[in-house]
Amino acid sequence: MQDQTLRFGFHKIAQNGAARLGEIATPRGIVRTPAFMPVGTGATVKALYPEQVKAAGADIVLANTYHLMLRPGAERIARLGGLHTFMRWDGPILTDSGGFQVMSLGKLRQVSEEGVHFQSHVDGAGHMLSPERAVEIQCLLGADIHMQLDDCLELPAERRDIERAMELSVRWAERSQAAFKKQAMPGQALFAIVQGGTDEVLRRRSAEALVKMDFPGYAVGGLAVGESHDIMLSTLEGVTAMLPDDKPRYLMGVGTPLDLIESVARGVDMFDCVLPTRNGRHGLAFTWQGRLNLKNACHAESTTPLDPESTCPAARDYSRAYLHHLIKSGEYLGSMLLSWANTAFYQELMGAMRSSIAEGRFEAWAEETKAKLTQVQDA
Amino acid sequence: MQDQTLRFGFHKIAQNGAARLGEIATPRGIVRTPAFMPVGTGATVKALYPEQVKAAGADIVLANTYHLMLRPGAERIARLGGLHTFMRWDGPILTDSGGFQVMSLGKLRQVSEEGVHFQSHVDGAGHMLSPERAVEIQCLLGADIHMQLDDCLELPAERRDIERAMELSVRWAERSQAAFKKQAMPGQALFAIVQGGTDEVLRRRSAEALVKMDFPGYAVGGLAVGESHDIMLSTLEGVTAMLPDDKPRYLMGVGTPLDLIESVARGVDMFDCVLPTRNGRHGLAFTWQGRLNLKNACHAESTTPLDPESTCPAARDYSRAYLHHLIKSGEYLGSMLLSWANTAFYQELMGAMRSSIAEGRFEAWAEETKAKLTQVQDA
Repeated sequence: MQDQTLRFGFHKIAQNGAARLGEIATPRGIVRTPAFMPVGTGATVKALYPEQVKAAGADIVLANTYHLMLRPGAERIARLGGLHTFMRWDGPILTDSGGFQVMSLGKLRQVSEEGVHFQSHVDGAGHMLSPERAVEIQCLLGADIHMQLDDCLELPAERRDIERAMELSVRWAERSQAAFKKQAMPGQALFAIVQGGTDEVLRRRSAEALVKMDFPGYAVGGLAVGESHDIMLSTLEGVTAMLPDDKPRYLMGVGTPLDLIESVARGVDMFDCVLPTRNGRHGLAFTWQGRLNLKNACHAESTTPLDPESTCPAARDYSRAYLHHLIKSGEYLGSMLLSWANTAFYQELMGAMRSSIAEGRFEAWAEETKAKLTQVQDA
Repeated sequence: MQDQTLRFGFHKIAQNGAARLGEIATPRGIVRTPAFMPVGTGATVKALYPEQVKAAGADIVLANTYHLMLRPGAERIARLGGLHTFMRWDGPILTDSGGFQVMSLGKLRQVSEEGVHFQSHVDGAGHMLSPERAVEIQCLLGADIHMQLDDCLELPAERRDIERAMELSVRWAERSQAAFKKQAMPGQALFAIVQGGTDEVLRRRSAEALVKMDFPGYAVGGLAVGESHDIMLSTLEGVTAMLPDDKPRYLMGVGTPLDLIESVARGVDMFDCVLPTRNGRHGLAFTWQGRLNLKNACHAESTTPLDPESTCPAARDYSRAYLHHLIKSGEYLGSMLLSWANTAFYQELMGAMRSSIAEGRFEAWAEETKAKLTQVQDA
């Protein structure tokens, strides 16, 4: 029984077109898919209590290896009992490998076969992140799902650079897997990351090489980084078709509610994105009737809540006028309420997708919902 | 019956030395005294949900006339149903008159017999605050306890300036009372503010004039503004003795846990202060074992919570190591948790004072508690 409960696995329950309903089993609980993972960069989903994240319906959260290795440090978190204890989240945690943040936040980044050397954006100290060190850090954190280190390019990039980075990422996947097998705990899983930009040939080479290595899950990296929406979706559609049906697929760093629907329609099972919390801090709310910018003067005397039918107190109990006032005044509570409401909305959206797939009506639901969500209530 | 429930009143239950246990009755509920009022400057106690403020044990909160008249505006709040509805606080609210904030935040301040003219710190617009306008604003907000407009001096000041400001404040008290009688709702109360610096003669003239006008409560203004602690306490002791026994006494803008104990010992019933929330945002925690600076490196690997016996989740459920990390990283959750823990501690402190007075052992309790609270755990 112990072996059974400690096994990582993915179980597909239903499918509508390419859209999949499933469950990821981890020793720390089930992740219902399609799943959206709130982002807890620095061991906290910004401006939310962990209880709120859980109550909103999130089964799993993401944390950032890059941020945590710099502050407070992976060894320190391990001494404190691991990331789950540290941040009071007892459900599954996925940690990214740090590759993307090294590219976007690190300074003086130098990529070699060995790994990537960079300077911390916190204190300027030099750090080396290799595939092996990335796995070691994620083991120290105690992540349930680890991501391999990949070489994330700054865009735009030449095809030959994309190819070089993709091939390096494949070699790093192999090293990550070897390191993971030595160190990881039973039931933990390491996902590989398919790279290759928007080039189908490169994506296929990446996917085939990684699938051959038999990872328990596959991520699609290097999308939604500046290419057009159409290109993003067509590339995604091509890549998911290259991935095994019986493994979860994770689209990294995406996205808007519409992106999530379009991506689920193309066979994606997992997402993470800072949008619900970052936009919330900036006064933007996602609702079933479309987006709202609470900074707009039209909300200044509105006694209506964001969504009177929401189960989230932030969306249901506070007037738009009050939210407008809080955001305009730079009050903490404005960021707290809108981050909370958006996090809850994203979970409601995933729940609605799961229900519609279960009931065999995902396509109709998606058409109807996309039309609602593209409304702008206060343009 | 209606008249009964709409009446404002103070009822003294017990007394130990000068320390008083009592209840203020308002149409929106009872305020147990000695009471600490969390400060909701801009219609929100910073970084707390209203439910947390209530659950911490606060019977009443304070809001700032100055801030709310500038943003979102008193007329707007009135159109939105009043301040209680706007900020989702259904208990009593005390509003200050704006005098102190005009002095400390307003620009180009000009005091005349009529009132005070100043420029908004938000947008530079010119505003006039007269005793009548201050009452009007507080009526628009729907405050349960109003404060008269007073002339708050910048310190240090000459005796003749303190005298002039005190006399002007007495005349403004009279005008405030006349305006209040015309506009206020049944059960609302207007408190007068005793001024006069640290000069006993001036304080007595102020108190005698105001007591003659028969206000339902009296505040002590112009203390804890830079004078020494001993002078503050001796002045306070003198002033409370000049005030009627059957009216609540409110020491404005005070203070540390020790200040609260010393002031209750001198007959004060009500307090407000930004310390618990402001210090919380800066990483300082108040506990029964003394103060903690969570920024200190000594907390970096401490798995101990702030106070394992607290009823406040923020103090009980999160490790000091995590709080240290959050504060060092500038995360919202750090400010949220420490503001919450401090707000709860202040209410616990007031509750303990009330119990000790009820049990006739305030003096012994105070000695014992002051010794504990002056400990510094992490110096």
